[in-house]
Amino acid sequence: MAAQFLVIDERKVQEIIEMTQVLRAVEEAFERYARGEAKMPPKLYLELPQFNGDFRAMPAWIGDYAGLKWVNVHPDNKGRGLPTVMGKVLLNDPETGEPLACIDGTTLTNYRTGAAAGVASKYLARNDSSSLGLIGLGEQAKTQLMAISEVFELQEVLLFDVDEEQREEFVRSFSGFNFKIASLKETCSADIVSTTTPVREPIIEADWIEPGTHINAMGADAQGKQEFSSELYRREDLNLKIIVDDAEQALHSGEVNVPYREGVLEEEDIYGELPLLVKEKREVREREDVTLFDSTGLAIQDIATASTVYESVTEGSLKV
Amino acid sequence: MAAQFLVIDERKVQEIIEMTQVLRAVEEAFERYARGEAKMPPKLYLELPQFNGDFRAMPAWIGDYAGLKWVNVHPDNKGRGLPTVMGKVLLNDPETGEPLACIDGTTLTNYRTGAAAGVASKYLARNDSSSLGLIGLGEQAKTQLMAISEVFELQEVLLFDVDEEQREEFVRSFSGFNFKIASLKETCSADIVSTTTPVREPIIEADWIEPGTHINAMGADAQGKQEFSSELYRREDLNLKIIVDDAEQALHSGEVNVPYREGVLEEEDIYGELPLLVKEKREVREREDVTLFDSTGLAIQDIATASTVYESVTEGSLKV
Repeated sequence: MAAQFLVIDERKVQEIIEMTQVLRAVEEAFERYARGEAKMPPKLYLELPQFNGDFRAMPAWIGDYAGLKWVNVHPDNKGRGLPTVMGKVLLNDPETGEPLACIDGTTLTNYRTGAAAGVASKYLARNDSSSLGLIGLGEQAKTQLMAISEVFELQEVLLFDVDEEQREEFVRSFSGFNFKIASLKETCSADIVSTTTPVREPIIEADWIEPGTHINAMGADAQGKQEFSSELYRREDLNLKIIVDDAEQALHSGEVNVPYREGVLEEEDIYGELPLLVKEKREVREREDVTLFDSTGLAIQDIATASTVYESVTEGSLKV
Repeated sequence: MAAQFLVIDERKVQEIIEMTQVLRAVEEAFERYARGEAKMPPKLYLELPQFNGDFRAMPAWIGDYAGLKWVNVHPDNKGRGLPTVMGKVLLNDPETGEPLACIDGTTLTNYRTGAAAGVASKYLARNDSSSLGLIGLGEQAKTQLMAISEVFELQEVLLFDVDEEQREEFVRSFSGFNFKIASLKETCSADIVSTTTPVREPIIEADWIEPGTHINAMGADAQGKQEFSSELYRREDLNLKIIVDDAEQALHSGEVNVPYREGVLEEEDIYGELPLLVKEKREVREREDVTLFDSTGLAIQDIATASTVYESVTEGSLKV
């Protein structure tokens, strides 16, 4: 009776994961979550300050799948030649509880994060957006490009990273895009700007942001971290709409956590949560608005993304 | 740099798990936990009432290992030919966060539960205990016998189960014990009595329990379940000492949850938590006391038990 338990490693995930599927799954996950057709208790932390690290259990149910991501954050790993973050997703049948798969979490997380920005851009950016600016060119930037280029016809992609090797590696990873290496300020002039840097202090000046821009602020992922100057929230000439994936998480550790703690913005300044906007198919943007999507990452994204990989493997094996 | 991630299935766990090691690991886990050398946030539930089931994330850190058990409870599975409970343990290096192994959870859980009763019996039962009564003869009863027979020289093991096939299967599983199939009442006359039944309503009368007995009450694992009549807690002629693994969990879903809700006993009637008694090596028993260990299961037991299996596999592979 029991299903075969699959172990799907990083290499296999990379081989079969498809951004088109992940985008669809994540958009559907947001919608179902907003409809109450998914469930996601708050992350549970196992904090180990003696090792300067922690673990997070992120359980969720959505549709035909339940499961959790179990993921660490150990910043000192950089000096050890190990990734800071190493996760595993356990996937189960929600009806019987049966364990279905253990899936490596790094690629899954990159894709689900890219997909969140893709969905946010779809609902928030100008319909005629044709340029993308990428600030920070690591692994996370790659899935930004993959996802957003599925949603928009990109005429130009502006690239900024302080590290030349990183820039070159990024350009080599793709074909068919009109890339332009640009200054940080020029990169901010794109219709859609995605930031995925590890900086702790702001690097983006408030007055570099032009009316009509959509921003995916992906980099800040811990208390005290921010990529954009808090002055952005003070600019009276801009109609800035802040959209978050989850308000509590964003105020705690997303891009808005620093201005929130500084008192520059309040909870009421958050325009809304993305899942609800997706459900309501609501038109958020006036043409000259600046929209800022503050992403912290939801367990439903992980489970939805893992389910696309699991289904690709099991459907593949049925064909054989 | 990264360690190889091991996938250890049920068959392999059964092949290599050793109760002697598990007993030592669980006793040490209790002691370290009481010393503050281990960490265990409260279980996180993903409740899916629409499927009459739930999942629990049970993270813990202890010594050289961190990790979590992710386990379901789906009572309707009995009718589906599937186990009610199917767990996986993910084991990590706490210093770097590296995932080390994914280990099937059923045998691990049976052993860690048996070991808890073994440790409880060591600290609570009379030193000259020589008979064990087992009420309910499923998988859990087997690890009760394995663990308690490591701690005491058992002259006689009294066995009770309503199901004849279960009784026969149990007896066939062991050699070297002096088994006696007995009535429920007679089984309660042993020096140490372990109950592992799935009953919801009490089956054990209060006046069957004799002074000097140690009880391991393992069966009740959910609100509303109990194996012993609440009258036991009203017997004025007995000096009853109730020891739990975790007071909050026990009052919520352990053997004492029903009398607690009925108002028959209060939180103050709990004598103590086992981890603290292990740490303090405290003499709890006066000879004629009745001690009752109410076990609900702790994540530190799971991680400690999983670590013995992981170390057996990795040490084994070094030898090859």
